[in-house]
Amino acid sequence: MTLKPVSFEVMASEGEARAGYLRTRRGVIETPVFMPVGTLGTVKGMRFEALESPELDARVILGNTYHLWLRPGAEIIRACGGLHRFISWERALLTDSGGFQVWSLGALRRVTEDGVEFRSHIDGQCCFLSPEVSMEVQAALGADIVMAFDECAPGDASHDAARASMELTARWAARSRHRFDVMQLEMMDAGRTPAGDGFSGAQALFGIVQGAAHIDLRRESLARTIDVGFDGYAIGGLSVGEEKSVMYGVVEEIAPLMPRERPRYLMGVGTPEDLIEAVARGVDMFDCVLPTRNGRTGQVWTSHGKVNIKNARWVADTRPLDERCGCSVCRRHSRAYLRHLYVVGEMLAGILLTHHNLAFFLDTMRGVRQAIRSGNFMQFRREFLEQTRSGDE
Amino acid sequence: MTLKPVSFEVMASEGEARAGYLRTRRGVIETPVFMPVGTLGTVKGMRFEALESPELDARVILGNTYHLWLRPGAEIIRACGGLHRFISWERALLTDSGGFQVWSLGALRRVTEDGVEFRSHIDGQCCFLSPEVSMEVQAALGADIVMAFDECAPGDASHDAARASMELTARWAARSRHRFDVMQLEMMDAGRTPAGDGFSGAQALFGIVQGAAHIDLRRESLARTIDVGFDGYAIGGLSVGEEKSVMYGVVEEIAPLMPRERPRYLMGVGTPEDLIEAVARGVDMFDCVLPTRNGRTGQVWTSHGKVNIKNARWVADTRPLDERCGCSVCRRHSRAYLRHLYVVGEMLAGILLTHHNLAFFLDTMRGVRQAIRSGNFMQFRREFLEQTRSGDE
Repeated sequence: MTLKPVSFEVMASEGEARAGYLRTRRGVIETPVFMPVGTLGTVKGMRFEALESPELDARVILGNTYHLWLRPGAEIIRACGGLHRFISWERALLTDSGGFQVWSLGALRRVTEDGVEFRSHIDGQCCFLSPEVSMEVQAALGADIVMAFDECAPGDASHDAARASMELTARWAARSRHRFDVMQLEMMDAGRTPAGDGFSGAQALFGIVQGAAHIDLRRESLARTIDVGFDGYAIGGLSVGEEKSVMYGVVEEIAPLMPRERPRYLMGVGTPEDLIEAVARGVDMFDCVLPTRNGRTGQVWTSHGKVNIKNARWVADTRPLDERCGCSVCRRHSRAYLRHLYVVGEMLAGILLTHHNLAFFLDTMRGVRQAIRSGNFMQFRREFLEQTRSGDE
Repeated sequence: MTLKPVSFEVMASEGEARAGYLRTRRGVIETPVFMPVGTLGTVKGMRFEALESPELDARVILGNTYHLWLRPGAEIIRACGGLHRFISWERALLTDSGGFQVWSLGALRRVTEDGVEFRSHIDGQCCFLSPEVSMEVQAALGADIVMAFDECAPGDASHDAARASMELTARWAARSRHRFDVMQLEMMDAGRTPAGDGFSGAQALFGIVQGAAHIDLRRESLARTIDVGFDGYAIGGLSVGEEKSVMYGVVEEIAPLMPRERPRYLMGVGTPEDLIEAVARGVDMFDCVLPTRNGRTGQVWTSHGKVNIKNARWVADTRPLDERCGCSVCRRHSRAYLRHLYVVGEMLAGILLTHHNLAFFLDTMRGVRQAIRSGNFMQFRREFLEQTRSGDE
């Protein structure tokens, strides 16, 4: 392969925390980065214009292979020119492998060496996902960053169960890499870049470290994943119900061992506090549904901690959600109005609260990057945590 | 009263159609105008920034007195500085009187000379609305245009029933006018403009013509409403289930008899075709939930007629909703993507389809105004109707 999928450069560091640039074929992503989740090809409740605005300036969003494969289907998206064109987003896209979604189906799935048989959560239809199928679907979607197909073990998996799962993940990582490489070469030979959208550069493939809460398995998983060789490395299987101390412990042990010259991605995490704590342990990339899901359920993240917009105390409160926030929602709307919208069930409640939450997450990450670059990250971290815990609404 | 509530000037006309300017204390509204409906203090699914953008440029929106009175309540809105401040909209607002909403409660209401007793559609609580209460609530809301409290008769009301209802409306019009004027004077004396928001100028009060499908009653209603004297005149009680020919017939008979120097407002109407037909009969102002409600149910208005976005034929259709439309949705998104969003139940479907529908309605009215000003309205009307009926999607 002649085209470089991504390049990554660490520009500044403080302790384990790093600030860098991840260059994809669709623009530069400053790290540490939070990636809003666009499960079905939309970051729920958000117009793309808002995501692109300087206020949010999301440089990369996620798509979910499992969901998009079921609806509208990979062939429809391919026929419409790939996921970027289908949803009309020219910035970077990362697609997960479907492994985590299939895992969360629980009893509806059956795992074999070959892959996972499962019943669709929509109509119960029998489906089969494997490393090869996942790579084929992700090639059709045309994401800039593709994730290897993995198996996720429960947070409380025994050592034996976690080992079996981790070893399967390692074998699937090699199969993912192989199928991915063959397809990239085929596309290059055919003179097409993936998804045929006129962008130069190949898709990047990231590997995933598993092993549940067992540090020895996590270490072994990392070594085997590095052996296969990927453009970036992710820690999977966290934020799945384990204690927070377990998550921090795994990240603290594993992140610093991950290749320094590659981006490190902590999947499915987390709260603003989690992001900062994981950055302090060496992580560069995050995704999580919290800002969007909480926005729709009336939970708001602010510099003084969480606010429940349903609370009757806001009924005539003309203050913004967060006086320190410069987002278009805080500049314009009061808690009283947002509470009213939420209580009467208006769509605009979810739209505005999601916007603010994303602004808060993305702005926090801007602060994190700036602090690392100027050598003030430890101070930033301490002050951020003190303030969000103050609950001084 | 020393401050002029609104002024209206007809700048051009063609047949009965008029193009003019309605000057309110919150800016100039070019007529004929379509007013998006913001029932509960939000035009459903729309951010105010979008309504203000040059693309939509809505100069006036509606609020519903009945709904806002129940939730969050007039006192909350007053405490937050009036409806404009509460929702954060600095352009003009019109509030209806609550009469129509109470009428649509059907069996839940009891009408007496004094007013209407009804049970709230939310919790069944007993409420009472009268001309005086409606004026007091609308003063608290602080709309730039206030509607008299009327009684609406069913579209198929007998002559006797329609007469009784029309006569009650006439008596309520006088009571509305009286209570309104007393309050305006009180506010002026207290050195406050209504809602205390620093705007100069009084609130305007519009009267409503009733009489169901009976032209003689409509004529009498108009005469009695003019006798009371209002800043503008509305035709109410249409678009309530009667035949379209009845609606056009009433408008054709009544609109030209309404005072030429006052704005004429056809309440709750209608489709783009209805708007153009009513403009041709002399109407200046309209409101309707169609563009917003249809947006949420997947019905799209285009220059070639209506499109049902659920239709399977759009599954991989990369064309915009309307190739002649310059709105941000048509510039960016395909039918395939919009269909996908709708089918999977994503919020963004309602957001984008509502935006396009409003753009289409507001743009149609821009075209109407331009056509009247340049003397091409009859041609515009003919071409518009031919094209929307062509169904050439």
